[in-house]
Amino acid sequence: MCRFLAYRGDPIFLEELVAAPCHSLIHQSLHAVEAKTETNGDGFGIGWYGERPEPGLYRELRPAWSDENLRSICAQVRSHLFFAHVRAATGTATSRANCHPFAQGRFLFMHNGQVGGYAGIRRRIEAMIPDALYATRAGTTDSEAIFLAALANGLADEPVAAMACTLGAVKRHMQETGTDEPLRFTAALTDGEHLWAFRWACDAKPPTLYFRETRDALVVVSEPIDGKRDGWQEVPKGCTLVARRGRGLSLECLNEAMARAA
Amino acid sequence: MCRFLAYRGDPIFLEELVAAPCHSLIHQSLHAVEAKTETNGDGFGIGWYGERPEPGLYRELRPAWSDENLRSICAQVRSHLFFAHVRAATGTATSRANCHPFAQGRFLFMHNGQVGGYAGIRRRIEAMIPDALYATRAGTTDSEAIFLAALANGLADEPVAAMACTLGAVKRHMQETGTDEPLRFTAALTDGEHLWAFRWACDAKPPTLYFRETRDALVVVSEPIDGKRDGWQEVPKGCTLVARRGRGLSLECLNEAMARAA
Amino acid sequence: MCRFLAYRGDPIFLEELVAAPCHSLIHQSLHAVEAKTETNGDGFGIGWYGERPEPGLYRELRPAWSDENLRSICAQVRSHLFFAHVRAATGTATSRANCHPFAQGRFLFMHNGQVGGYAGIRRRIEAMIPDALYATRAGTTDSEAIFLAALANGLADEPVAAMACTLGAVKRHMQETGTDEPLRFTAALTDGEHLWAFRWACDAKPPTLYFRETRDALVVVSEPIDGKRDGWQEVPKGCTLVARRGRGLSLECLNEAMARAA
Amino acid sequence: MCRFLAYRGDPIFLEELVAAPCHSLIHQSLHAVEAKTETNGDGFGIGWYGERPEPGLYRELRPAWSDENLRSICAQVRSHLFFAHVRAATGTATSRANCHPFAQGRFLFMHNGQVGGYAGIRRRIEAMIPDALYATRAGTTDSEAIFLAALANGLADEPVAAMACTLGAVKRHMQETGTDEPLRFTAALTDGEHLWAFRWACDAKPPTLYFRETRDALVVVSEPIDGKRDGWQEVPKGCTLVARRGRGLSLECLNEAMARAA
Repeated sequence: MCRFLAYRGDPIFLEELVAAPCHSLIHQSLHAVEAKTETNGDGFGIGWYGERPEPGLYRELRPAWSDENLRSICAQVRSHLFFAHVRAATGTATSRANCHPFAQGRFLFMHNGQVGGYAGIRRRIEAMIPDALYATRAGTTDSEAIFLAALANGLADEPVAAMACTLGAVKRHMQETGTDEPLRFTAALTDGEHLWAFRWACDAKPPTLYFRETRDALVVVSEPIDGKRDGWQEVPKGCTLVARRGRGLSLECLNEAMARAA
Repeated sequence: MCRFLAYRGDPIFLEELVAAPCHSLIHQSLHAVEAKTETNGDGFGIGWYGERPEPGLYRELRPAWSDENLRSICAQVRSHLFFAHVRAATGTATSRANCHPFAQGRFLFMHNGQVGGYAGIRRRIEAMIPDALYATRAGTTDSEAIFLAALANGLADEPVAAMACTLGAVKRHMQETGTDEPLRFTAALTDGEHLWAFRWACDAKPPTLYFRETRDALVVVSEPIDGKRDGWQEVPKGCTLVARRGRGLSLECLNEAMARAA
Repeated sequence: MCRFLAYRGDPIFLEELVAAPCHSLIHQSLHAVEAKTETNGDGFGIGWYGERPEPGLYRELRPAWSDENLRSICAQVRSHLFFAHVRAATGTATSRANCHPFAQGRFLFMHNGQVGGYAGIRRRIEAMIPDALYATRAGTTDSEAIFLAALANGLADEPVAAMACTLGAVKRHMQETGTDEPLRFTAALTDGEHLWAFRWACDAKPPTLYFRETRDALVVVSEPIDGKRDGWQEVPKGCTLVARRGRGLSLECLNEAMARAA
Repeated sequence: MCRFLAYRGDPIFLEELVAAPCHSLIHQSLHAVEAKTETNGDGFGIGWYGERPEPGLYRELRPAWSDENLRSICAQVRSHLFFAHVRAATGTATSRANCHPFAQGRFLFMHNGQVGGYAGIRRRIEAMIPDALYATRAGTTDSEAIFLAALANGLADEPVAAMACTLGAVKRHMQETGTDEPLRFTAALTDGEHLWAFRWACDAKPPTLYFRETRDALVVVSEPIDGKRDGWQEVPKGCTLVARRGRGLSLECLNEAMARAA
């Protein structure tokens, strides 16, 4: 289990959310409250959009709490859209390539969850990735594989449908191999403009996901970064929070999308 | 605050204590129980004696819990005398050179504690290190500086007196700069043959220290590695456990040694 | 292109070959002579056999020349059979999981060479790895994939035939995708007892490989560790040097083995 | 010996100098031409000024040539003033804290050179650093120590005089300890506005230093980043290139400044 945050709004320094608040993401790397694991010390990553269509990426295998570079970069970089993630590994190695967020072209993706019995179905999930994208597969995580498979399933055009289709396929692979462990998927996706935040699990126990909308900004988090509940709304289980630029927020049902995709 | 263990006895694979027990040192890197900090993820180190008078050393800035090399080395190396340490930094950077144990010639040293107001008296403590040893000062911790200063004060000949003398001097430096923070010192030292384990604090709150003696071995730990209290004895506050090869264990009073040194 | 060495014989400290000679493997990490790249600074690894059937492994992504741990471990560990490798990456990331040697059960494997057009046929090579082994695929290199595929092709029973079969299959995948780049394969394999050293390329330009046999030991190297040619014999192109315990050295022709496998 | 570059001018993406040119600084990390060492693989660093008075800093102990984060950050960050440095260690460890540039408040400093017999006079140089600054001493290099000592000697007000005074003192310490090795000092300093580039050695063999001035920008380098000599001017031996904002470039004689300081 991991912790993450996504921000879209008026440009701010990353440190305002990543480092400064009492329950900032860096704080959560050592003291998460709502996670299965309190410590998220198996690497971290930030991804942000600046002047280019593709995001910048800084990922490192040290714990976030002791990384001087992270603090310095977050104090310098100002962005209207950024992701940050601290990792608690669930079976795969601690390496930069296994750290979130993952980038592909204009897209950023990060995940908190698990694919039950992943070691046994890893190749089946990877087989969903087309050759051209497979060459960019740099790590070994389920998260990166799902992202690449979803891109092949149309993530750029219909994110919710593409993700539903991908999760449905992963679930079928899990059923075929007979695992008892669940598929749980709380994730965030952006193309540098719009933002999607997913919360779904096959056993109705998806990891927590909150958002806070103000006049200036939307913040999506695993758990509130101010340590309070006021002002934060839960993304309902089974839903995707859709934040298209210039439009109001909306919720889409992932189960329905999965039924359509099946 | 950190966690450590020291072993002397019949040669065993390091993994028997470092990796295997339910509350092994690797487990404590993520879930310490008796420490001020539950997580000890700011690097780690092992030092061991094999066929040579000088110990081997493997120190790394990643957390112990995710280091594949640590597990592999501990599964291969068998030793009659070894130290292992997982670090929770108290103000100095996460780097290999700041990881314990520290080695000098035949000696190994590791520490759990704090020097109150260290940043302000660091140079005074370093001034206690003679030039020849100062060239080997590789990190910035109080622990390494105290070790090098104690070597200059006769650690090789009279370890308890040398350490008492050094701690007394550090305490005076602290008093002169008027810090309110305490000096706490729980540590282990060996020359590859004999073993000393110190537990002292100026405020009578030294970090915990336990030992277990069997027919085959002596184990000294910050907290029991089996998660139980049976079979473990506390090193009394203010005392040094002295384990000279071929002799029974004894306890020496550090305060008396400090009075003699003063 | 990389540099490596393999040793089998009377137990010696690893440092005698890895660190001490004027042209030691650590020296070659910075100043290789017979390689396409003079610098081999993209990580390194050592694997050695001690008291257990499985080898120990220390792999790290820093350059070998500046790694204090490597020097200390090589000064302590004495072994009758060990591998050491310094890496110059050819397209895949610098990470521990991409460092050689690779271990599987009792086996150690390391490689110097290239699979032309690897990015395009990576999945085809990975498809040769059975599910059970695929779960242990930790990195993204061609070398690791070939090793795992060869294990599936009978490496434990008939190493030369299994490797010939695997290389033949890789070559066919390369032909199908129409790459102009060559397949070059200089490698070493051991099960902790016997040793095989391969030197083959589809374009008759396999990387260099030498061996030196004395009464006490066999040493196999990419280039001589003493910087001299005396006493070193070249493994002929297209050949495998076979060093079964208790028997004399022999050379087997890989092309014949490939013809038989086809 | 190391390689570095400094830029001041119209804001550009760091990659335009650090990553893109045929002989970029990243290229020089593997293939320097005018240095004593071709490989500069002992860590690297970039420092840049954005919206804040203090610079951002990204330093890492991996070689620059294989660091994905460096490429991504350099592709995103646009700055009017930045430093970049690739390190070839001369006796001190490879760690982040030993990587250049060093930052203090608004200042950035980086160095290429050597202090002969440094191990023996390290403490004397450190003694030139006042207590308040000494608490920020994070590494063990001569370069960082000289920077901190120069700050104490008035670097903020009279950079050339302060550096001359500091180098003079270092030279005296060297003479007192009787080293035969030289003091060589090629370095760059900025406060986020003005830029100073020093080239001096006690034996008239200071490391190379070039600059190129165009209408839009000033670039200072250890060796030309385009692999050509056209358009580059050498900073004369014994001189400091002074580039105050809004004024023309000037050269100041360091020897004269040292004579005045003595």
